[in-house]
Amino acid sequence: MIVPVVKEILKADDQVALENRAAFDAAGVAAVNVMGSPGAGKTALIMAAVERLSPDVQPGVIAGGVASSLDADRFAARSIPVVQVHTGGCCMLDASMVHTALLHLDLPTLDLLFIENVGNLICPADYTVGADLNLVVPSVPEGHDKPYKYPDMFAAADIAVLNKADLLAGSGFNLGYFECGVRMVNPDVEIFHVSSRTGAGVEPWLEWLLQRLGKRTPELV
Amino acid sequence: MIVPVVKEILKADDQVALENRAAFDAAGVAAVNVMGSPGAGKTALIMAAVERLSPDVQPGVIAGGVASSLDADRFAARSIPVVQVHTGGCCMLDASMVHTALLHLDLPTLDLLFIENVGNLICPADYTVGADLNLVVPSVPEGHDKPYKYPDMFAAADIAVLNKADLLAGSGFNLGYFECGVRMVNPDVEIFHVSSRTGAGVEPWLEWLLQRLGKRTPELV
Repeated sequence: MIVPVVKEILKADDQVALENRAAFDAAGVAAVNVMGSPGAGKTALIMAAVERLSPDVQPGVIAGGVASSLDADRFAARSIPVVQVHTGGCCMLDASMVHTALLHLDLPTLDLLFIENVGNLICPADYTVGADLNLVVPSVPEGHDKPYKYPDMFAAADIAVLNKADLLAGSGFNLGYFECGVRMVNPDVEIFHVSSRTGAGVEPWLEWLLQRLGKRTPELV
Repeated sequence: MIVPVVKEILKADDQVALENRAAFDAAGVAAVNVMGSPGAGKTALIMAAVERLSPDVQPGVIAGGVASSLDADRFAARSIPVVQVHTGGCCMLDASMVHTALLHLDLPTLDLLFIENVGNLICPADYTVGADLNLVVPSVPEGHDKPYKYPDMFAAADIAVLNKADLLAGSGFNLGYFECGVRMVNPDVEIFHVSSRTGAGVEPWLEWLLQRLGKRTPELV
């Protein structure tokens, strides 16, 4: 007799993802699942976004990781509601972990929730957490071949935000090759180039994000 | 009744790792397990090493990944024996995958085998593949907080080779903070700074590596 344990567990987690989504909808919260390699700049990108929101768009953050609260500390220092989730060694956030984190957030007071996934280009692609949008953050120093080497991650994304674009000059990063790879696995993906450090490109990306999520954009400061 | 399936599978894989190690020893091959984030420069570092080996130190490569043969192609183009292993979506190489790859290499003709693990700072730390040495490749653009956020990877490493050191100036990367984090989880680790792109620091690192592995170093060209 074969017991398909893993399959059943995945199905249960998908059910929790639907519950998370229902909770977001009920509270009027738009949730973005932010994925990328270690050091791609997920935290910096989220920080660049929340710094540019007008006061009537209240952000919140769930920060996933295997250790430390360094990311969560950065948001807490700016009085942004944040929950740090340690995955117990797991290489991604799943819906149940997000569900538990939601118990520690006052969801109806939030408008925009960033779910910062574990730094990893493989595992998070296989799990839905119930977000409205899946966003992947590749970065220039990682090289232009990432969509070819990690196609599932780019296939799972609604939007790819190429970070550290200030390092493009002289890097050998071939934008055409990169974008061709992204569109090969995912013709519908939106691609933006930003530098969280300099701020270049952050506002057009954020404007698109807020429009897509049904949040008013004129509040952009 | 509880059946500890995962534990037993891990034990079986550990047994295969011992067999890999015995095969390396019998063939006089020193094997290095190279781990790091996507885009940290694992392939570039290995390439920088093999380009500097004298002709009587024969390298070989096992290149792990979830998709494409881009890494293996680079070695094959230089007539370096290489096997590309696709992990079937798995976020690391395990001993059994390496064991299978060894069937495609003429081990007695090799002296130094680089096992390039899947780009990931989490999963590969939990698996031994039977290598003589575990090497982690952090890189400057990933930021100085990686040992704090991914301690298990740095704890599992015998040596940390900080790549892309040519990007240190003006990056905000705090070397002292980085090295403190590495030594906090692993006081015995060796730390080197290199730039695979410029070649800076590659020879001192390679000399240490060959000495540690019992390979003669004067052959360095």
